[in-house]
Amino acid sequence: MSETCVLVLDADPLPRLDRLTDRARVLHADEKSLAERLPEADVLLVWDFLSDAVREAWSGPGRRPRWVHTPSAGVDRLLPELAGSETVLTNARGVFDQPIAEYVAGLVLAMAKDFHGSRELQRQRRWRHRETLRVAGTRAVVVGSGPIGRKIGRTLMALGVSVDLVGRTERSGDPDFGRVHSGDSLGTLLGEADWVVCVAPLTDASRGMFDASAFARMKPEARFINVGRGQHVVEADLVDALLSHRIAGAALDVFHEEPLPVESGLWDVPGLLISPHMSGDTLGWRDDLAEQFLDNFDRWDAGEPLLNVVDKQLGYVPGS
Amino acid sequence: MSETCVLVLDADPLPRLDRLTDRARVLHADEKSLAERLPEADVLLVWDFLSDAVREAWSGPGRRPRWVHTPSAGVDRLLPELAGSETVLTNARGVFDQPIAEYVAGLVLAMAKDFHGSRELQRQRRWRHRETLRVAGTRAVVVGSGPIGRKIGRTLMALGVSVDLVGRTERSGDPDFGRVHSGDSLGTLLGEADWVVCVAPLTDASRGMFDASAFARMKPEARFINVGRGQHVVEADLVDALLSHRIAGAALDVFHEEPLPVESGLWDVPGLLISPHMSGDTLGWRDDLAEQFLDNFDRWDAGEPLLNVVDKQLGYVPGS
Repeated sequence: MSETCVLVLDADPLPRLDRLTDRARVLHADEKSLAERLPEADVLLVWDFLSDAVREAWSGPGRRPRWVHTPSAGVDRLLPELAGSETVLTNARGVFDQPIAEYVAGLVLAMAKDFHGSRELQRQRRWRHRETLRVAGTRAVVVGSGPIGRKIGRTLMALGVSVDLVGRTERSGDPDFGRVHSGDSLGTLLGEADWVVCVAPLTDASRGMFDASAFARMKPEARFINVGRGQHVVEADLVDALLSHRIAGAALDVFHEEPLPVESGLWDVPGLLISPHMSGDTLGWRDDLAEQFLDNFDRWDAGEPLLNVVDKQLGYVPGS
Repeated sequence: MSETCVLVLDADPLPRLDRLTDRARVLHADEKSLAERLPEADVLLVWDFLSDAVREAWSGPGRRPRWVHTPSAGVDRLLPELAGSETVLTNARGVFDQPIAEYVAGLVLAMAKDFHGSRELQRQRRWRHRETLRVAGTRAVVVGSGPIGRKIGRTLMALGVSVDLVGRTERSGDPDFGRVHSGDSLGTLLGEADWVVCVAPLTDASRGMFDASAFARMKPEARFINVGRGQHVVEADLVDALLSHRIAGAALDVFHEEPLPVESGLWDVPGLLISPHMSGDTLGWRDDLAEQFLDNFDRWDAGEPLLNVVDKQLGYVPGS
């Protein structure tokens, strides 16, 4: 068997590459050279997972890699282009569960306790006591029943929050949540939630699901958190909902356009917290992502089935 | 038996007072009239629990109340003056456990995820991705083993944090924490902690315990949170520790002087988060505090033993 060629779409330097020494020929590409190098590759590592270059290069001439790995949870930058091919697609399922769950729990507590208000008052040297919200006993709906959504749900439950988890299909007997709801129930659930968390995979079904009609169903006290994809949200509708106090607040970690342009109107919408797509990115995350790919490469090299294989029709790794 | 006289040291209006109708004669006092009214009172409710007026009036002439209730967890504004009397002292044990635990967990997550940094970048319309801290797997030492400290500890444990609880006396076999450490171990524990949380009762033993030598033992990555009393901390030493980066950050909810004066240097110390003594004060807290007193009044009225009786020598309600 000839040596495997691993092509890396480069971003920051890839750690732990020494694990491939004498086992694979490693090529590097940037967005410009990707199309030209792609036919040489048996394996493509989309290390620059924020790039759209793979999607754009995919339909070009020559052989396509047999395996593509993206070190991200979402695969929306690769589909639908890869869906029609034989190529196996794997993702970073698992790496982001704990960090994103902590991030969302932190946002819930920070919004409940008005930490941002305290910080602003501190800037003004003003001592102004306020009564804040008790988180235990509130209700959350988490849209997205994959491992990240499940971990968010379990973490909020540990804080005493009642959690409704919404997935693609309704099912009962879930060990953590009892019932997992389908999207059909979302309208009702939105009307009962203090916290609405979006962590769904971006698919045709979920694109734009948080629009004016969704925000209209929420309580005036509700707060919305998006750690999924920017395209889940109709941003103009969210701005309207915040400005008209139809909902009490929101936190966005993801946006239609990233980086969010300096001239965007979102930066200074009252009640809107903005962070730069970092909810899952804890110290050492790049090491974890590299190790995860290299562990899967060991399986590939040994002829074993890969882990975290994405169903390219569904757009995510099926099963819990 | 003559009608019980309940004297209320007034602050904000006391809710639920109708529960005393036909059962007690209710008198009101402010800080000025307290000394004069005190001899009439069988029961004193220190509704204005931030006042030092009781301590100042206590040594005056006439009869002292047989029961004093403070709707706070700390009783440091009443001791040592009440300690020499026969008066039974009760506190608000229990009401603040969940709110303060949520507040501290929120601060831990907010500091780990640099929410305040994100907010400042948002103000500047700057998109700057950072890697943040994973909370699971970090270590906390919680100084104070009463119900609030225990609840903080359990909440942090639910987030995957290893927690060392420090109380007055060392003991093993604790159902939640295994071993509870004594202050003798604190020096060692401080050197291992990512999070140091002060929620001890303010006593002669704990006053000023967080001083230069304590901060010197902490790791450069450590962050300090005080939800106890301002007097636990030598504020100038904390400022030095922050300015010299001996520790990574701090959050103070309590201060030597409250309200913190507008001219205080603390307001703009880098890495220091300031909030106005509100960690336990969630919506409805005054109702909960009033109900707790009135429930105890029912016991008093029925000749039953009161709940939450403070050991006036120790300065808190003993036992877990």
